[in-house]
Amino acid sequence: MGIGIDLGGTTIKGGIVSTQGHVLEERFYMTDSHRGYFAVLDDLCELINELLVISPVEKVVGIGIPGILSGDGSTIVSCPNLHWENVSLKKDLESRIKIKVLLVNDATAACIAEASFGSTYGKANAMMLTLGTGVGGGLILNHRIISGAHGVATEVGHMIMGENFYSCGCGKNGCLETFASATALVRYCEMRLEEGVSSSLNREKILDGKIIMDRAKAGDNLSLEAVNRLAKYLGMAISNISDLVDPEIYTIGGGLSYAGNFLLKKIQVETKRYLTYPDFAVPEIVLARFKNEAGIIGAANLSNYI
Amino acid sequence: MGIGIDLGGTTIKGGIVSTQGHVLEERFYMTDSHRGYFAVLDDLCELINELLVISPVEKVVGIGIPGILSGDGSTIVSCPNLHWENVSLKKDLESRIKIKVLLVNDATAACIAEASFGSTYGKANAMMLTLGTGVGGGLILNHRIISGAHGVATEVGHMIMGENFYSCGCGKNGCLETFASATALVRYCEMRLEEGVSSSLNREKILDGKIIMDRAKAGDNLSLEAVNRLAKYLGMAISNISDLVDPEIYTIGGGLSYAGNFLLKKIQVETKRYLTYPDFAVPEIVLARFKNEAGIIGAANLSNYI
Repeated sequence: MGIGIDLGGTTIKGGIVSTQGHVLEERFYMTDSHRGYFAVLDDLCELINELLVISPVEKVVGIGIPGILSGDGSTIVSCPNLHWENVSLKKDLESRIKIKVLLVNDATAACIAEASFGSTYGKANAMMLTLGTGVGGGLILNHRIISGAHGVATEVGHMIMGENFYSCGCGKNGCLETFASATALVRYCEMRLEEGVSSSLNREKILDGKIIMDRAKAGDNLSLEAVNRLAKYLGMAISNISDLVDPEIYTIGGGLSYAGNFLLKKIQVETKRYLTYPDFAVPEIVLARFKNEAGIIGAANLSNYI
Repeated sequence: MGIGIDLGGTTIKGGIVSTQGHVLEERFYMTDSHRGYFAVLDDLCELINELLVISPVEKVVGIGIPGILSGDGSTIVSCPNLHWENVSLKKDLESRIKIKVLLVNDATAACIAEASFGSTYGKANAMMLTLGTGVGGGLILNHRIISGAHGVATEVGHMIMGENFYSCGCGKNGCLETFASATALVRYCEMRLEEGVSSSLNREKILDGKIIMDRAKAGDNLSLEAVNRLAKYLGMAISNISDLVDPEIYTIGGGLSYAGNFLLKKIQVETKRYLTYPDFAVPEIVLARFKNEAGIIGAANLSNYI
């Protein structure tokens, strides 16, 4: 068993996770980050203590964070969703509660959940790609998470893939997430609609990734063009990642992955086009299993992967 | 102490390496791979036995291979320089000599030499890039080499960086080594000369990487343009690698690295332009220390990094 916390911009979710990967008990708090760091810290302590009452044998709590941690995993360097910068969350929590605290990036937590009980179970080397508003990632090599010397490993959304017609929020041009996220789908379709391309998307007031995926499935030409472009750049990115660390499996998560096999097949085909050794070094590519509970399950199992 | 072998297309070099990283005894054989696999195997056995006579306490020999190994490191999947495919070198050697055999890619061996005694000494996470005819690499994370599930990790020369005016020998377009190798420098200068660009390179019958580097140092405009282009794509590649595994240090080796600080400074400047977090996650970039002996030294220390 283990205690895992998923600290999000909207809610703080905590749970006790069984050795089979089931969330046995779950508790929620609203994050309300505008209250400031110490109010959120108080709630985190209360939530952990509640779970400790239920399972007093626990010696460690894992916490998934939607931001960048320091290389040693002790400090939150940057967490825009919570408006936090350089906060010593591990130290601050450990001085208040009687249990060891481990922090992890939330995409890495999801990667651990998949490796522990999900789509990449049993694989020593696995990469998770989360396709949502941006593109995130988690990487496990030799059964250990890769966090990096400065804590910025698996920020794969910012790998430069070529020139793009709009620049990334990070200030660079050509980042993977400007080609392969829900935002990228919307921006691309808006640009093409402005160019006068005819599409059933024209009837929508507000576009989002799900609408474009659904329309692509229904055969809308522009939506298909956008999804094919996304799959092409993901294939290229997966090939590049394989050239560097050669995982045996990739798992695709995040909101866009709910498009299921329709998207997965396209990514598999495009990856094979770009792989350097398509004859003998082809990674498996699958869909992630966990959705909302990935953060809790992964955080609860963090200590097995560091 | 340890025994290391550098199995090259031209020579088989073997040596006994001290715990301080000095090659105490060194022996050479010509490879003459046209003689066939078993003749080379005989010479390898003889070379290892000669070294074992000098240092009979050794329990393991490391062998650097200019090719691709299987994921478990037992088999040479492909070694174009020796015309070998799918040969069980580990098993074949271990049945003939009384010592454990470990195989490693030669660029990874060089990376180990730098981590053990050279430019990346003491760093847990280090990436080596070798700039020669192609672009090779070695990667150490958490003091362990990364070989990949299919043995093709750190084939970084084939990461796709954008469109290029000529395609890579691997069949893809846009591979890093078509932008950032000695071959890339030559191809780019030849293309620009054909376009009629004026340059002192025009007086050369045959171009190579060293000539172009030397002319760039001397101020030739086209040579500078070519070297700056190479540095730009290396900066982009280093930034992409940092987005995935975030090493604390990169070391630049291979023939082009002999251009020294002239090239190094350019790579450092370009990398900083492309890094996703230039304010707090800047890797060190240095020149490799070892040249010809890197393979032997790294192979001899392989067992400390697996």
